[in-house]
Amino acid sequence: MGKSALQKARAAYQPKLPVALQGAVKIKEGEPTRSVDNQEKIKKLFPNTYGMPLVEFVPGTEKNTTRMNVGVILSGGQAPGGHNVISGLFDGIKKLNPENKLYGFLMGPGGLVDHNYIEITADFLEDYRNTGGFDMIGSGRTKLEKEDQFEKGLEVIRQLDIKAIVIIGGDDSNTNACVLAEYYAAKQYGVQVIGCPKTIDGDLKNEQIETSFGFDTATKTYAELIGNIERDCNSARKYWHFIKLMGRSASHIALECALQTQPNICLISEEIEAKDQTLNDIVENIASVVAHRAEQGNNFGVVLIPEGLIEFIPAIGRLIQELNDLLAAHGNDYKDLDKDAQREYILNHLSAENKATFETLPEDVARQLSLDRDPHGNVQVSLIETEKLLSDMVASKLAQWKSEGKFNGAFAAQHHFFGYEGRCAAPSNFDADYCYALGTSAAQLIANGKTGYMAIVKNTTASTNEWKAGGVPITMMMNMERRNGEMKPVIRKALVELNGKPFKTFAACRDEWAKNTCYLYPGPIQYWGPSEVCDQTTRTLALEQE
Amino acid sequence: MGKSALQKARAAYQPKLPVALQGAVKIKEGEPTRSVDNQEKIKKLFPNTYGMPLVEFVPGTEKNTTRMNVGVILSGGQAPGGHNVISGLFDGIKKLNPENKLYGFLMGPGGLVDHNYIEITADFLEDYRNTGGFDMIGSGRTKLEKEDQFEKGLEVIRQLDIKAIVIIGGDDSNTNACVLAEYYAAKQYGVQVIGCPKTIDGDLKNEQIETSFGFDTATKTYAELIGNIERDCNSARKYWHFIKLMGRSASHIALECALQTQPNICLISEEIEAKDQTLNDIVENIASVVAHRAEQGNNFGVVLIPEGLIEFIPAIGRLIQELNDLLAAHGNDYKDLDKDAQREYILNHLSAENKATFETLPEDVARQLSLDRDPHGNVQVSLIETEKLLSDMVASKLAQWKSEGKFNGAFAAQHHFFGYEGRCAAPSNFDADYCYALGTSAAQLIANGKTGYMAIVKNTTASTNEWKAGGVPITMMMNMERRNGEMKPVIRKALVELNGKPFKTFAACRDEWAKNTCYLYPGPIQYWGPSEVCDQTTRTLALEQE
Repeated sequence: MGKSALQKARAAYQPKLPVALQGAVKIKEGEPTRSVDNQEKIKKLFPNTYGMPLVEFVPGTEKNTTRMNVGVILSGGQAPGGHNVISGLFDGIKKLNPENKLYGFLMGPGGLVDHNYIEITADFLEDYRNTGGFDMIGSGRTKLEKEDQFEKGLEVIRQLDIKAIVIIGGDDSNTNACVLAEYYAAKQYGVQVIGCPKTIDGDLKNEQIETSFGFDTATKTYAELIGNIERDCNSARKYWHFIKLMGRSASHIALECALQTQPNICLISEEIEAKDQTLNDIVENIASVVAHRAEQGNNFGVVLIPEGLIEFIPAIGRLIQELNDLLAAHGNDYKDLDKDAQREYILNHLSAENKATFETLPEDVARQLSLDRDPHGNVQVSLIETEKLLSDMVASKLAQWKSEGKFNGAFAAQHHFFGYEGRCAAPSNFDADYCYALGTSAAQLIANGKTGYMAIVKNTTASTNEWKAGGVPITMMMNMERRNGEMKPVIRKALVELNGKPFKTFAACRDEWAKNTCYLYPGPIQYWGPSEVCDQTTRTLALEQE
Repeated sequence: MGKSALQKARAAYQPKLPVALQGAVKIKEGEPTRSVDNQEKIKKLFPNTYGMPLVEFVPGTEKNTTRMNVGVILSGGQAPGGHNVISGLFDGIKKLNPENKLYGFLMGPGGLVDHNYIEITADFLEDYRNTGGFDMIGSGRTKLEKEDQFEKGLEVIRQLDIKAIVIIGGDDSNTNACVLAEYYAAKQYGVQVIGCPKTIDGDLKNEQIETSFGFDTATKTYAELIGNIERDCNSARKYWHFIKLMGRSASHIALECALQTQPNICLISEEIEAKDQTLNDIVENIASVVAHRAEQGNNFGVVLIPEGLIEFIPAIGRLIQELNDLLAAHGNDYKDLDKDAQREYILNHLSAENKATFETLPEDVARQLSLDRDPHGNVQVSLIETEKLLSDMVASKLAQWKSEGKFNGAFAAQHHFFGYEGRCAAPSNFDADYCYALGTSAAQLIANGKTGYMAIVKNTTASTNEWKAGGVPITMMMNMERRNGEMKPVIRKALVELNGKPFKTFAACRDEWAKNTCYLYPGPIQYWGPSEVCDQTTRTLALEQE
């Protein structure tokens, strides 16, 4: 295949490894662990994979040369560095024994169930080292959670003489990896399952996982674009840019981008939920900043908006809940009415509080909430253009204030949504190294007979040499949560902590950033050049590990 | 002000200069020139600035030390490198005589007329070297074209003892610079005016100007994003991404991005106009590629769309023309009718051909064309979301083909518009050097008493040392064109040449790119690292200068 100059040059990059993984490796086991909550329940559900120790790799003296084949799966949305996890895994098992083989299951977990796979050879792999994307073997969203899937997968595992499966995915995929590990352990199939922490959203992290891979590269790519827009904004001095950022559940991406670029406003869903703010509160806050800047002659600014915002606004959440029930019970009564009659019907059936919320919404958003459902009956929040919704409502608010003599400026908006622009960027040096180390750790966990573990690398704000690699029992990170009406064992999702340093650092600066123009321009990710440019971690990671 | 790590590191970059501008400089004059067309008319309009020779700078032996002050203006849309033109100009005049002063007029040409300016000092400039944006002194779109503006400008020019004004802008701004130069020459005011070729659109180029500054950085930034999206597209394998690219008049940006990223489809407005394609032709072409890829199981792809497309479709152009006339003559008759009645009214009044075109348009686009006008009575084409319009029409076409058994795949689209993301990016090494050399040339043109010239730098595909710097009389690039109903002397705008190498190279590959997946991933602009990564020119420039 053809390659750009950067692809060619970057292919030659040799990711750096922590000292412990550079030569022969010895495993060091810690004390037994327990899950973060609901210990009895989790223990009962995972009798074979509960309570195992944390492990760390340290320099050893002899090589493990067991012959083994391994399978690898990419699960869920793309994140920069996935190919380097596979490279680290490949090099790791080949170093243990050159006859070891690595198989890649195609298009996600479905590839295991449907027996679609390729062997990943050295030649094949060369084209993918240090590249972004998941195109090497593709990814998919099939959930591995049923016994017949596990049994179907076992067939191809046996056929290929596979000792272990590595699942590279987010919190749900790793939860499922653990369920699969438990199943194979309970059946004494002798097949190990290892997870790897992937997601640009940054919401798979805890005491054991410092960061999920891809977050570094994706946020730096978005921050490059936000910085460029800020510079444009500050040059033209005539637009407010409303920028929505991918990440449906948590606001880590928006927060990290704010720390990197210092915009005038950044909304954090978790704060809005905690303070029980309404859509009107949010709109008034933004409009106040616009009005204040206008008084200084600055009719421009930048607003960052997390993709999942709408669902975190408690009043909207309650409204959606009631609409879901209403639609389930009476959807057929009004689906053939005309638009106005439908609206009337809904208003007549809503409770007073939710009716009031419904009436504040622009008509097309109200319509979206009251009609369009995905196949599971859920509102398709991603279809709501929050960035336009907010700027429209801010424009209305400012028009009202203008008529009352409270606003004298100009307001014109531009809209952006960044997601696909960063999920497959070529991994930063950090992600390239971090992923390669994760893959190498996964190889070692397998060689040491572990199952139900996630590969981890810690101390990641130090130089790569000093990073600490190892594994964490997945059950250790679990608790019981309600999912689709049932209590399920899941890895706890990490939302933005309002008491955490990243948020507090942001909160301490934001008034200054709102009033003045304090934009920072991070520029594009650099792979060569001064270390302070090429090798810096995210601000989130630096602040959390301080 | 706070700075990112990249800003700090990049501030230390010393742009490279051609040999001729490195030490003392001598001017070498060529033969008298003539305008590209309408010689008699242009000569009559510019009696004092017509026919001057091309000039080139060569190494000299002694320094010109005349004491002089200079004013600089940024005009029109932002382009990466503007600050480096100013840096080159500053360093150039200070080298001639440390007492020389540089004044920056604020927020564009209006700053000259309204006497808003600052002195640009060495300290002040330090923060802006090698940075993107025009925020150093701001930009604006005031047109300098009236005598009272020229006279008002002269007041502040006299007050500050300014010898020359440098106007950094696109084709229109440079045309106006020449009109101003001619006016001051005719009045024997002794004030020189020099232009500089700026625009990310790439449409200010000709025999004398190899490329306009900013095109290199902006297209590389868009190509980074397109490449990232292609990689995502090729990993997820489920979306068609419709990407609109800024650049209203010419399709150079889309073409250059296509050469850098090899998407499945790239529309070129100039070709569509030349072939008199209809909107339906375009939609059928796209739908055919979608259908062909679907047969191979590839329900994904990337389509690049130039922002100005709509206006280049001849049938739409004719429709807009008739609608403009209709609106001017009868707008009041139907403005108070309801939507349906308005549509009816328009359909009843259009000629048969335009009526047929109008009927093929989605309702909201038809409405936009028939109602919303800017203050000059023109359709606001930039409000039309061409990327959504096309994907909607492709979806309809495919649905029809599906019902006829001619299409069996899936089609889901994502939309993007890139413009603000690249106009203010930190300049690439190429733009940083090119702009600095342009600014240095401008200083030399002034020191040598020139007016009505544009600073130029040629041989830009060679190493910087070998670049050739000089000046071109602006009248040489002019011809007469109709503007707002009047014939005016203007610099000829460079559209994509269908016989030029960039287009022919693209045209020779596009069938292959459409059918197969040949994506290239250029990655982010690199400032350090291997020369083939950091110092490559655009493909357009390389092909044109081959």
